[in-house]
Amino acid sequence: MDVELLVIGNEILIGKTLDSNSNWMAKRITRYGHQLRRISTVGDDLNVISSTLQEILKRNPDLIITSGGLGPTFDDMTLEGIAIGLKRKLELNEHAFSSIKKVYKHAYERGILKLEGMTKERKKMAFLPQGSTPLPNTVGTAPGVKIREKSTTIFILPGVPAEMKSIFRNIINPILKEKKGKFVEKGFLFSGIGESQIAPYTSELENKYPQLWIKTHPKIGLSVLVEVSITAFNVENGEELIDKALSEIKEIILNLKGEIKERN
Amino acid sequence: MDVELLVIGNEILIGKTLDSNSNWMAKRITRYGHQLRRISTVGDDLNVISSTLQEILKRNPDLIITSGGLGPTFDDMTLEGIAIGLKRKLELNEHAFSSIKKVYKHAYERGILKLEGMTKERKKMAFLPQGSTPLPNTVGTAPGVKIREKSTTIFILPGVPAEMKSIFRNIINPILKEKKGKFVEKGFLFSGIGESQIAPYTSELENKYPQLWIKTHPKIGLSVLVEVSITAFNVENGEELIDKALSEIKEIILNLKGEIKERN
Repeated sequence: MDVELLVIGNEILIGKTLDSNSNWMAKRITRYGHQLRRISTVGDDLNVISSTLQEILKRNPDLIITSGGLGPTFDDMTLEGIAIGLKRKLELNEHAFSSIKKVYKHAYERGILKLEGMTKERKKMAFLPQGSTPLPNTVGTAPGVKIREKSTTIFILPGVPAEMKSIFRNIINPILKEKKGKFVEKGFLFSGIGESQIAPYTSELENKYPQLWIKTHPKIGLSVLVEVSITAFNVENGEELIDKALSEIKEIILNLKGEIKERN
Repeated sequence: MDVELLVIGNEILIGKTLDSNSNWMAKRITRYGHQLRRISTVGDDLNVISSTLQEILKRNPDLIITSGGLGPTFDDMTLEGIAIGLKRKLELNEHAFSSIKKVYKHAYERGILKLEGMTKERKKMAFLPQGSTPLPNTVGTAPGVKIREKSTTIFILPGVPAEMKSIFRNIINPILKEKKGKFVEKGFLFSGIGESQIAPYTSELENKYPQLWIKTHPKIGLSVLVEVSITAFNVENGEELIDKALSEIKEIILNLKGEIKERN
């Protein structure tokens, strides 16, 4: 599956919050053999959210996952932005309403919150774009949301990492697993010769193994330590091919008088 | 100034690398009163790099900063992607060529690298889109690049954090400072009452102080600890207004029997 992320929150754009959600999701999308194509990070702005969603939909990914902007305050406007982008109305979702109500009731009874009942702001979280399915949030208040738009499934998740992860694990992981592709990644480190010296050989290997993606990453300064990583997306005998390519590139490095260090 | 980031690298999309560059740049852009509008993170793919650049240019930002994809290997294709996006040719830049040559000569003489001279792959880093100015990279090999396109200035930086930061500090920081706006941010934490309970009051304060951006962030679970942060972008008496709004919101929280904790 092709996946895109839409990350929503001014706090990321002003540098107050480091977006670690995307990396966490990227690992899982990749692990199950799916391809994350793009991450779009935008602010809490209705026009920007809706137009960015429309741009993403034009690229026709199988999944869009959004995070952020589901809370009770006025600047949490993801649901409205998505609704505008999809040209759908927001409507009170009874399931979402009763689950939000339950969370607040529970918090009030335990003495965590001092205000009882559903205020306008709390109720706001239950207004979902038409056609939405609310997704239970077992560690927070605002439910996640699932919506289909043509061949794309949109998952709308909270930005608080614990809440995002909980819904991702419960709802999205099983889908990624079910439609599982195959992703293999192996690699090692070398020193003594630089990235540019090995570059013509990795190009040749790429031509020899077009199914693989062979990449070098300089790890320290001027290529004093370079990482080789070889990945295969949905290649039947990916692991076998990677092992072949790895032993060839190691031989090349040794011939060039480089030193090989295994990764830890 | 309006700023957009274009982050390029498959390693980010597969979750191998956490993009901390964007957060580092976002802080500095914000500190000098400029607005980061969007971060677009894409893979090492010529079509995607060029079309994403064109989309960003349509939004007409003052600055575009790209990071990643400037190295010597075949999958470092940012310069070519940008050239296609700008409909310009790549041409050998003599300044870039001689600075890259010097770095490799030095590394060879110090015994860090075992291959002398400019290979095809090393030379590749000196082919810049027409009209480029190379920016010295004092901690790595690939120079950064500056290009003007109509009213937008594009800075192309390496993805290796130390190299990105070095060029950013030397070249971009002075420009951000020169065109400096004013950004103020203050805040505190509170507990005992939830985000949803304070929401109607922050909405009111937003109406009273339309120049400010008043935001609450739940810090732990179900709003057991909430952060209030108030920011002002280019507001003449921003600090004074923030102090007023802060004391009003603190009073509200105390009236609601919340507890205030200063941030550290």
